[in-house]
Amino acid sequence: MAVKISSASASFDEEIDRLLMSKREISEDVDHIVRDILKDVEDRGDEAVLAYTAKFDRLSVASMDELKVTEDELNAAVAQVPTETYDALKLACDRIRAHHEKQLPESSSYMDPIGVELGSIWTPVEAVGVYVPGGLASYPSSVLMNVVPATVAGVERIVMVVPSPDGVLNPLVLAAAKLAGVTEIYRIGGAQAVGALAYGTQSIAPVSKIVGPGNAFVSAAKRRVFGRVGIDMIAGPSEILVVADEGNNPDWVAVDLLSQAEHDPVAQSILITDSPTLAEEVAVAVEKQLETLPRADVAGESWKNYGAIITVDDLEAAMALSNRFAPEHLELAVEDPDALLPLMRNAGAIFLGRYTPEAIGDYVGGSNHVLPTARSAKFSSGLSVLEFVKRSSILRCNPDNLAQIGPAAVKLAEAEGLGAHAKSVAIRLNR
Amino acid sequence: MAVKISSASASFDEEIDRLLMSKREISEDVDHIVRDILKDVEDRGDEAVLAYTAKFDRLSVASMDELKVTEDELNAAVAQVPTETYDALKLACDRIRAHHEKQLPESSSYMDPIGVELGSIWTPVEAVGVYVPGGLASYPSSVLMNVVPATVAGVERIVMVVPSPDGVLNPLVLAAAKLAGVTEIYRIGGAQAVGALAYGTQSIAPVSKIVGPGNAFVSAAKRRVFGRVGIDMIAGPSEILVVADEGNNPDWVAVDLLSQAEHDPVAQSILITDSPTLAEEVAVAVEKQLETLPRADVAGESWKNYGAIITVDDLEAAMALSNRFAPEHLELAVEDPDALLPLMRNAGAIFLGRYTPEAIGDYVGGSNHVLPTARSAKFSSGLSVLEFVKRSSILRCNPDNLAQIGPAAVKLAEAEGLGAHAKSVAIRLNR
Repeated sequence: MAVKISSASASFDEEIDRLLMSKREISEDVDHIVRDILKDVEDRGDEAVLAYTAKFDRLSVASMDELKVTEDELNAAVAQVPTETYDALKLACDRIRAHHEKQLPESSSYMDPIGVELGSIWTPVEAVGVYVPGGLASYPSSVLMNVVPATVAGVERIVMVVPSPDGVLNPLVLAAAKLAGVTEIYRIGGAQAVGALAYGTQSIAPVSKIVGPGNAFVSAAKRRVFGRVGIDMIAGPSEILVVADEGNNPDWVAVDLLSQAEHDPVAQSILITDSPTLAEEVAVAVEKQLETLPRADVAGESWKNYGAIITVDDLEAAMALSNRFAPEHLELAVEDPDALLPLMRNAGAIFLGRYTPEAIGDYVGGSNHVLPTARSAKFSSGLSVLEFVKRSSILRCNPDNLAQIGPAAVKLAEAEGLGAHAKSVAIRLNR
Repeated sequence: MAVKISSASASFDEEIDRLLMSKREISEDVDHIVRDILKDVEDRGDEAVLAYTAKFDRLSVASMDELKVTEDELNAAVAQVPTETYDALKLACDRIRAHHEKQLPESSSYMDPIGVELGSIWTPVEAVGVYVPGGLASYPSSVLMNVVPATVAGVERIVMVVPSPDGVLNPLVLAAAKLAGVTEIYRIGGAQAVGALAYGTQSIAPVSKIVGPGNAFVSAAKRRVFGRVGIDMIAGPSEILVVADEGNNPDWVAVDLLSQAEHDPVAQSILITDSPTLAEEVAVAVEKQLETLPRADVAGESWKNYGAIITVDDLEAAMALSNRFAPEHLELAVEDPDALLPLMRNAGAIFLGRYTPEAIGDYVGGSNHVLPTARSAKFSSGLSVLEFVKRSSILRCNPDNLAQIGPAAVKLAEAEGLGAHAKSVAIRLNR
């Protein structure tokens, strides 16, 4: 049973603070192991990657060639996928692509009042690596969410790495890779795969950016190669926060809460409502649904340890509280979500109204499901096309406007003690 | 004397590779020291910050209050700045603000063909920390470049930290802070300042994002707190790459090269030209100017160890090479820069034509001078307003369009073994 907190309680603030501070991540200290693996991959390349793959994935092969997924294997995987599932994957892919196409920033420039030209040129990252976890957390939907924005951005080379412990690969994941537009796939994982992508090996050319979720080893490796390559966020356990009024079906709210809880025993599901009645009804509904849920063990543990039902005086208070949680997913299951939306300050993705369960955004809504967790929506955004492009600024002066603004630059350069800076402007003023 | 490389040479590729691989960063291993400092600041707060400030900055005070810069101190600093310098700073600030105001992304949403609403809401980060180095590298222009985009984004709380070794602070830096719109200033620095910003102390409320350059301790600390807060890039030594045709004044090109070289003995300045004549003339001009340059020691060392003059067959080849260097600053000192611009793939900022020396962008051009170094322009962009806002995606279905796309979501959730996900959609379909 989740914790129940009421704003009527004298200890409300304290209880909320406790909830906000609760650490849900088990931070395994794998950094020294990862450092050694990365160093080894940087030094020995393929040889090191093959050795770690044999050791960790129990997959012994003679050369990297054998770990590269061929076009035939890809087609065979697609053939294995039931038609209905393939069609669903295709619908998801098309909808994700259509939405992300609207995110492409446009290069532009303008003249300022004195004729200086300023602007931005957006170009795609040339090569991107996408990490896809093996085993249970190997989700085809995540492949779409990570790869499609890269293809929309115009990334030419998209290298997917996915470990195949004991040689086993999920055909759906390969089908998603093909649909989305991955250009190379290697059956490698862990820190060794991150190292191969960042440093390159004899067989794998290096990439400029690495995205995608992974276990503690993968996260530590991404953090270490950051700077050498770009990385996306370090993803934490999933979260949902539902702001709900009285007019909800408690079963609907309950299953939405459980849909995050079933991800992970350290996932977090929170309901904030202005209706004590709904609070009670949802609490009951959750317990009831747990009786029949296939992943009840996982969901139940998450709900018991990290779930919360919070009652507040009004929905404005609910929004203020939600902003402090900065949830990955925020459902506004209320009569008039548009009235609450302007109060939102921090959230990864927002699901409006009673007919937008979070799970629709996980698959076919079209928006991205790679979202900031663990309060990081306070400073970062979900994955988008912007993650796969970069901006070069442009500046153009002519003799006249350089004469107008140049002297100030000379003054500031002198004040900073940078003589060549000053001279590089001054020399162009003395014509 | 810088290295000279010609595409006519048989060893051209090899020499370019060597130049690309040359390591310019001295990676001091300060990570274990930084880890301990951060832990201490997290545990003890103000007390730890005061202790490290006494130890590293030789500045012993009884409470954090004494390290907070007051309005009076700020005004006194402004009064100390010569009028002409202040006016130059003001011009720079105004121009930077005017340009960055054009970068503000707009929230928007649309209905897709089946009536699903998708969109993005952009909101400012609520609190940002700006690290400003003390001592020699304490540049007022950098204060403007880091702070103005945050104010334009709408950040409410902008906390500047700047160490004042032995109590000394640069009045120009304080004047820039006031002009730009900093809301709190503390005279603290190093990993302890980064820790105070990230975790908060009894006196300093935590921020959500930390930007600004610093030494090895500051960089290591930023890397460690990344995730808890957002950070900007890890900045490396400065770089310039000048693509020049024959029609240049070699003195102009030489001083532009030296304007980066004077920053740091490990800065890098590269000329690529299709004119062997210009190559020779610039080589001579650099040596001549080094004779009178105030910071000739620094600039000379950088030029000798890391400078390069590369001659190629044509300007297209120059651009292809430039893309591999992915320079922080790219000058296109050619007759027709617009003909080369479409060939640019990787660069932080581009300066077009003969009358746009890079230094104009450092101060008064209006674009940002915080730019990606060390090839990171391959995957990242210069500082902009985008760094201080974040995007929340929105999604809204109604019963009809949920009925259209919901079954595919159910199918995919089932394929991924996520029963509650499937049920959260299915329960809304069976009306």
